[in-house]
Amino acid sequence: MNVLTFGEMMLRLKPSESKRILQSDAFEASYGGAEANVAVSLALQGDESAYLSKLPDNLLGDAAKGTLRKYGVNTDKILRGGPRLGIYFFEKGASVRGTNVVYDRAGSSFATAMAAEFDWDSLLKGVNYFYFSGITAAISTELQTAILSACEYCAQHHITVIFDTNFRGKMWTPSEAQAFSKRVMPYVNVVLANDEDFESSLGIKAFDGDMRHGIDQKESFKAGMREVVAKYPNCHTVASILRNIHSVEDSQWSALLLRDGQFYESVVYQLHVYEGVASGDAFGAGLVHGFLHGFKGQEQVDYAIAASVLKLTVSGDLNLVSEPEIRNIMQDGGSAMSR
Amino acid sequence: MNVLTFGEMMLRLKPSESKRILQSDAFEASYGGAEANVAVSLALQGDESAYLSKLPDNLLGDAAKGTLRKYGVNTDKILRGGPRLGIYFFEKGASVRGTNVVYDRAGSSFATAMAAEFDWDSLLKGVNYFYFSGITAAISTELQTAILSACEYCAQHHITVIFDTNFRGKMWTPSEAQAFSKRVMPYVNVVLANDEDFESSLGIKAFDGDMRHGIDQKESFKAGMREVVAKYPNCHTVASILRNIHSVEDSQWSALLLRDGQFYESVVYQLHVYEGVASGDAFGAGLVHGFLHGFKGQEQVDYAIAASVLKLTVSGDLNLVSEPEIRNIMQDGGSAMSR
Amino acid sequence: MNVLTFGEMMLRLKPSESKRILQSDAFEASYGGAEANVAVSLALQGDESAYLSKLPDNLLGDAAKGTLRKYGVNTDKILRGGPRLGIYFFEKGASVRGTNVVYDRAGSSFATAMAAEFDWDSLLKGVNYFYFSGITAAISTELQTAILSACEYCAQHHITVIFDTNFRGKMWTPSEAQAFSKRVMPYVNVVLANDEDFESSLGIKAFDGDMRHGIDQKESFKAGMREVVAKYPNCHTVASILRNIHSVEDSQWSALLLRDGQFYESVVYQLHVYEGVASGDAFGAGLVHGFLHGFKGQEQVDYAIAASVLKLTVSGDLNLVSEPEIRNIMQDGGSAMSR
Amino acid sequence: MNVLTFGEMMLRLKPSESKRILQSDAFEASYGGAEANVAVSLALQGDESAYLSKLPDNLLGDAAKGTLRKYGVNTDKILRGGPRLGIYFFEKGASVRGTNVVYDRAGSSFATAMAAEFDWDSLLKGVNYFYFSGITAAISTELQTAILSACEYCAQHHITVIFDTNFRGKMWTPSEAQAFSKRVMPYVNVVLANDEDFESSLGIKAFDGDMRHGIDQKESFKAGMREVVAKYPNCHTVASILRNIHSVEDSQWSALLLRDGQFYESVVYQLHVYEGVASGDAFGAGLVHGFLHGFKGQEQVDYAIAASVLKLTVSGDLNLVSEPEIRNIMQDGGSAMSR
Amino acid sequence: MNVLTFGEMMLRLKPSESKRILQSDAFEASYGGAEANVAVSLALQGDESAYLSKLPDNLLGDAAKGTLRKYGVNTDKILRGGPRLGIYFFEKGASVRGTNVVYDRAGSSFATAMAAEFDWDSLLKGVNYFYFSGITAAISTELQTAILSACEYCAQHHITVIFDTNFRGKMWTPSEAQAFSKRVMPYVNVVLANDEDFESSLGIKAFDGDMRHGIDQKESFKAGMREVVAKYPNCHTVASILRNIHSVEDSQWSALLLRDGQFYESVVYQLHVYEGVASGDAFGAGLVHGFLHGFKGQEQVDYAIAASVLKLTVSGDLNLVSEPEIRNIMQDGGSAMSR
Amino acid sequence: MNVLTFGEMMLRLKPSESKRILQSDAFEASYGGAEANVAVSLALQGDESAYLSKLPDNLLGDAAKGTLRKYGVNTDKILRGGPRLGIYFFEKGASVRGTNVVYDRAGSSFATAMAAEFDWDSLLKGVNYFYFSGITAAISTELQTAILSACEYCAQHHITVIFDTNFRGKMWTPSEAQAFSKRVMPYVNVVLANDEDFESSLGIKAFDGDMRHGIDQKESFKAGMREVVAKYPNCHTVASILRNIHSVEDSQWSALLLRDGQFYESVVYQLHVYEGVASGDAFGAGLVHGFLHGFKGQEQVDYAIAASVLKLTVSGDLNLVSEPEIRNIMQDGGSAMSR
Repeated sequence: MNVLTFGEMMLRLKPSESKRILQSDAFEASYGGAEANVAVSLALQGDESAYLSKLPDNLLGDAAKGTLRKYGVNTDKILRGGPRLGIYFFEKGASVRGTNVVYDRAGSSFATAMAAEFDWDSLLKGVNYFYFSGITAAISTELQTAILSACEYCAQHHITVIFDTNFRGKMWTPSEAQAFSKRVMPYVNVVLANDEDFESSLGIKAFDGDMRHGIDQKESFKAGMREVVAKYPNCHTVASILRNIHSVEDSQWSALLLRDGQFYESVVYQLHVYEGVASGDAFGAGLVHGFLHGFKGQEQVDYAIAASVLKLTVSGDLNLVSEPEIRNIMQDGGSAMSR
Repeated sequence: MNVLTFGEMMLRLKPSESKRILQSDAFEASYGGAEANVAVSLALQGDESAYLSKLPDNLLGDAAKGTLRKYGVNTDKILRGGPRLGIYFFEKGASVRGTNVVYDRAGSSFATAMAAEFDWDSLLKGVNYFYFSGITAAISTELQTAILSACEYCAQHHITVIFDTNFRGKMWTPSEAQAFSKRVMPYVNVVLANDEDFESSLGIKAFDGDMRHGIDQKESFKAGMREVVAKYPNCHTVASILRNIHSVEDSQWSALLLRDGQFYESVVYQLHVYEGVASGDAFGAGLVHGFLHGFKGQEQVDYAIAASVLKLTVSGDLNLVSEPEIRNIMQDGGSAMSR
Repeated sequence: MNVLTFGEMMLRLKPSESKRILQSDAFEASYGGAEANVAVSLALQGDESAYLSKLPDNLLGDAAKGTLRKYGVNTDKILRGGPRLGIYFFEKGASVRGTNVVYDRAGSSFATAMAAEFDWDSLLKGVNYFYFSGITAAISTELQTAILSACEYCAQHHITVIFDTNFRGKMWTPSEAQAFSKRVMPYVNVVLANDEDFESSLGIKAFDGDMRHGIDQKESFKAGMREVVAKYPNCHTVASILRNIHSVEDSQWSALLLRDGQFYESVVYQLHVYEGVASGDAFGAGLVHGFLHGFKGQEQVDYAIAASVLKLTVSGDLNLVSEPEIRNIMQDGGSAMSR
Repeated sequence: MNVLTFGEMMLRLKPSESKRILQSDAFEASYGGAEANVAVSLALQGDESAYLSKLPDNLLGDAAKGTLRKYGVNTDKILRGGPRLGIYFFEKGASVRGTNVVYDRAGSSFATAMAAEFDWDSLLKGVNYFYFSGITAAISTELQTAILSACEYCAQHHITVIFDTNFRGKMWTPSEAQAFSKRVMPYVNVVLANDEDFESSLGIKAFDGDMRHGIDQKESFKAGMREVVAKYPNCHTVASILRNIHSVEDSQWSALLLRDGQFYESVVYQLHVYEGVASGDAFGAGLVHGFLHGFKGQEQVDYAIAASVLKLTVSGDLNLVSEPEIRNIMQDGGSAMSR
Repeated sequence: MNVLTFGEMMLRLKPSESKRILQSDAFEASYGGAEANVAVSLALQGDESAYLSKLPDNLLGDAAKGTLRKYGVNTDKILRGGPRLGIYFFEKGASVRGTNVVYDRAGSSFATAMAAEFDWDSLLKGVNYFYFSGITAAISTELQTAILSACEYCAQHHITVIFDTNFRGKMWTPSEAQAFSKRVMPYVNVVLANDEDFESSLGIKAFDGDMRHGIDQKESFKAGMREVVAKYPNCHTVASILRNIHSVEDSQWSALLLRDGQFYESVVYQLHVYEGVASGDAFGAGLVHGFLHGFKGQEQVDYAIAASVLKLTVSGDLNLVSEPEIRNIMQDGGSAMSR
Repeated sequence: MNVLTFGEMMLRLKPSESKRILQSDAFEASYGGAEANVAVSLALQGDESAYLSKLPDNLLGDAAKGTLRKYGVNTDKILRGGPRLGIYFFEKGASVRGTNVVYDRAGSSFATAMAAEFDWDSLLKGVNYFYFSGITAAISTELQTAILSACEYCAQHHITVIFDTNFRGKMWTPSEAQAFSKRVMPYVNVVLANDEDFESSLGIKAFDGDMRHGIDQKESFKAGMREVVAKYPNCHTVASILRNIHSVEDSQWSALLLRDGQFYESVVYQLHVYEGVASGDAFGAGLVHGFLHGFKGQEQVDYAIAASVLKLTVSGDLNLVSEPEIRNIMQDGGSAMSR
């Protein structure tokens, strides 16, 4: 079974030792991006994953590609060319000061790619799962077109389509996101929506916006999830992370899965966050891993949330953990927490 | 509106990565000092601030001055000369082990400066607020004399005098501090006193010395504040940070302001401290910013404590945050906490 | 009064900045090992301590020896020669991800040392306390023989024998450990056993294995301790650390001491752990320091647990703290916590 | 006397410790750019310099601006806004492997600035020297227009115009550069041209392109310089660095100055290069410093080349040296070398 | 065309910033080994290369394998298992102090591998070139057996066998090395021998042992090369690097190639060495690349020595350069030097 | 045989990665000082050496003392107390920019020590060689008195007195140095004087001050050395390093020894300097090592200069090399160079 993820990979620059950009004279460099993170997670968990993007044909593109290869992702389909690799500056927060991201991704090789550059007939050949996020769609209308073309191919070839809504207010507006969702959701088989994604991306009110009380709103999330499957008959699975966030370091995490009409809830983890980034991608990868290996709903949601909370302990965008490490958390975390 | 702060700036040397001095073969270097920190805070919040000190005429003095300039502080009034830049070694604590400071500031250019070197007629020309702390006074009797001369000038020219009592037991005794306070307080318009400062610097019993229960003693702090304004009629404002400190990382912070006879209380912040230094200076700068921009009492205390708790998330002595970032905390913090 | 500790010292390699091994291109290097840690603790607390091991005659052996000398440990008895210095890779955990140790210690100079290389007549001359841990015994049967020979010498020359059971499941099985304990315990005067050590090393059920609830099982620990002294009449002292561990960062620590028939309990510390390693060695050193200076039981257990929790705030294997720092914690910690 | 320099400032990212981009997981960050480097040099040498550019209104723009302020440059005229700060990756060479620069400067705030944004009437008021390089012109035709407008103002107000031709083959073609030169040179009073600049920027053949033998071609350089002043009567000064470059580390440096019809030659320095970047800017700043302080031709060229070779010993784009340090080299270097 | 290299990969630990082991508290970590270096070079130059070794099934084995994958080497044939990854400590020299290597490779997974673990029928299927060095043979007699079995397969299947003699006095004696050469050379088609390798590995006197004058002994090297092909008729190619080494930093490098009865000599490079390690592997990879792409003798030796001297400018064991970068040196270096 | 060295130890702070102080936000920390360096050299070469100084009773004093212990120096005689540890900032030069030292040593514990604090009867008991430098004498007249008292004791007890003149123009004037030399030289048995030391410290003209041509002035150095022994009959040995310094990196080093009326000359080393500090101390230690082990004159000077040039390859003040490493250089260096 083979997974293809489609999105943008960027150079991430983080001031060393929790410094602010203004005081830092060095940046830790790493490479990541939502769909690349998913591909790496799957490869490290032993699955066959491939990544599709367009990277510049320079040393930074080489470095990004090398990162993927290092962790076992198939990079044969990646296009090379275009002006530049997108960059984002990552200023890690602390306590009451939230993490701050400064995007410098405009004009990247992927952002300026044309839909026609992606020859889906060859790119999706042999693929079983196609994964993308709302970030890819938010980059350009060309990429929206590309996604929709891919989805059509998937529909015709029984490839499961997974869409992580992943709304980013710095990239597009809710109405733009919802317009795209309306077009793509008929093709989607599995959708991920956390927190405000329900409303911003799907136009469904499931959450009141108070990140301190996400878990407490489980019932309205369930209602939102039911609404999704009612609206889009091809969508058999909806998954959400629910969080109560108290500070940059302290939060509680839980997950809900609606699959084939049945709800599954994970335990609630009490966490000390080391780096709060890319845990949604880790969650998505955990779900896909569950599909690939025939997990039942409960195991799938438990596995995915365990993968997700592990990510909060790892620096960088990539969830550098193995399946045994995830299973280890499932056991410990599960016994320690009330369901 | 123009603020002049007066004090000592030092090279701070901190073992890298939370190491102890004994095991460290590298030090992170930064430059700071109570009044310099205030000047930098104000400049970063968009205010006109100038700093007065005496720095050695060598590369270390240049580096200290360059730091101030980088963040927008006017350094034209700084004297150059004298033997050396003071140094302090900063060993960051963790959990039950408190942060440890080793001073190496004796014989510095500022500590050996003579009162006569400060020509207040020209230095205070055009200044609206004059800010100094008890640390400056604790350094030498010459500097006490300098402060008192400055205060006289301020009294004659309607310059607001702000005094952060900031008692340091490693520098002088309570009786020395109180003797100085008796002489300077008649000139002071705004006084800051936190925790043990009331007793050690002002001779007023407001706090029982148990740092785990500062906030619980709000009423005795209020009594102490009233006593200050009763004793010194020129002093129209008294401000205090109140804290319950549980460990190096965990504490609760709140603030009290008595201004023109009225008390204002901030919310209580629950904090995970990244680096517990210079938050009093950040608070002082927040108060001054409030005066400069005509904040009412409640806004002033809310703004100042938000600035102060943000400092706890930033490494180094300087509060590298902007007014929008402070206001962002005021909103979030305020709604999350009980007043 | 003179203490000799006997064990293996290794190079510890830790990925920089909480990274995982897979993503790290630098390791922080330090040198440590259970009994070396004890010797360093004692020397830093002003005691005469010597360390016995076998180190390779190369630059890494020199570096390990230099570390001991730096902190004041007598290294004159250390043997030099053999193939290599053992190494361990230390991947610091975070939140739900536990700390991970990768051993690379097989075939080290110490592991391949022969019992006959240790001439106890000369090595133990003038020694008052002989200290070793179960780790030393787990390395090889030759070293078990060496320990037993040393113990015989101690018995004949009234040298106090201290045995930290320190069970390591990666090194030997419970039944191997118990077989060794049966042979050595008749010589032991002071034994340390934490958590699962009671069962794995001594074959006594005192703890149910749930690290989240160690302190809650104080009574069964007491029963286990009583069983030890009942079984081994030469053993006048049994000490244990009891812990409730909530996550890598958050835990509660307490200690129990059974000495000359009397139980002593420490306060319970609420801790934010910086690096959870070698705190048992710090505890052992605290106990020995208590014997060396004639502490009564209560002072001894209070001192030892304060030393132990301080270690949790220091990076590396060595407890780089002084007696005044430990006493400082005893006071603060004691008043802050319920006994 | 007041100098205004006009150009682009970028974030420079350099792999740590001479690594290649492909193997580096950290970048040293600094901020620089040809004209900014000149402004910083002048400020550090005690002159009044101001810098004009357009920086994005984000943290990276703040950091760039803070760097200039730190070293004493007036930043009041800098425009803020636009999409991004340009970046360049700097891979330091060694021996036979040349230094490699990867530009990521397209679409920067400065590159997208319009000529009309620069109000020269107010920007050049009170300025005595206006300095720009061919890099600024190579960025966009809008900026060429801006430069020409500025030059007209200068011509009318007796402001000396200094043009460092500074040809960059990665940014434009020789014919584009020459076309610009034809338009701007009539306004230029002082021109700098090194190595291939004569041909690429000015269309004058003075150098055969072999960097190993620049100094040996002194006479053809002189001929080229004479041709410049013959062609452009307003241009009273032409200056060139001549080099024999043997490897990244080893080279010989010398300078030629044609001023008011008279040639001046510096000594030849034998150098071990630490970082071969921005030494042309250091040379330009040295020349301007000479004009500001009334140096005669020989002193001026000696001073400028000494400043330039000092830059080769300093890491980063900025020549962090003082006038006494430059004069120190002039003495030592001069006596050690044949003229 | 497909290349398989066979050898050991180790963790290399280098004290940071040119420190000595004794003073270093951090090590830079990288992964390399002669044959792995060759495989990486080929992959970076666009060739299909695969690497065969045995790596432990732990995080260090994963990291070594990830390094190979990052740079494009096929790792599918690598065996996993066994006790540990070999380590070597690399203390970079300076001036008169030579680089110092401390091996800690005994008992590694590869060193303890059995000949029977390597199933050459499947491992060599589809391979065109088989590459190993004397280091592999020096590790164990089992590995010698493995090599000989592989060579037999190669002989039967027309796979070119390339043997880099690469004598290491810390691993075996000349007589052991020569005994192995006698058995393997009949199968070898291409042999590399530098400096003392001729005598130590092949028993042929070609060099007087004075590393300051290797290039001066070109004629005796040629005689030695002729002797090799005379003795071993299957061996059609012999290649050597010749060096005059003046200090750790300064040396001259050249190469000789005897191919199909014809000698080819490269230019002589004058070099400033950044890190003098693994340049022989870079040379070997350059030769193989030449065979793969049908280079004539002169182009092959010029390309190989250019690749080799480039390696001296790159940190770590791996020659992180591309074919265009090598060709760039060929041009510049060639014109600058006498042949 | 036992050596006692007497002087000041300081914290050395060096900007990381060849940065200048003005641009550095981290300092590498190490501990050293002329006589401490000598003691460490001896201990590492296997000799019994002890160090005498006064260190503050704080963490920085502990760190300095720990450094000495780490490398095997006896620290039992060191006094503790006084205000502070001296500091010096070390800005490493490059090429034409010389290394720059900023002293911050005034008011240190050693500088403020009284002569009477040194009880020479007990301190010199059992000592065979007493070593100090002109730096110690330059610190204070109290320390001059202390040295003279020590010398008297040495004279009475047949302890060899070794005086490294080591003139430092930043600490005292030539006339002050010469006045001290007049008083101390009658006691001195072995004197070291390099370059300008002859004139500045001893008032003997042996060198014209041009550091580019020291070796060329061998004959006038010899005349100066003869003058010393003629003037001071107790002085049986005079030793000098002679240098031709071309740049920070490139220089030639040689040594002259006049011992018991006979001259011995070393070879001339051509060097690439990594860090040009403390090589005179390494030379002095090499001489003393020669006395301790009965080296003849030629071996002694060859050994001492080899130790000295090795120091130029090691970072920090301490010559972290062993006797075998020094002997290795003697052989290689000797054969490579003309005598």
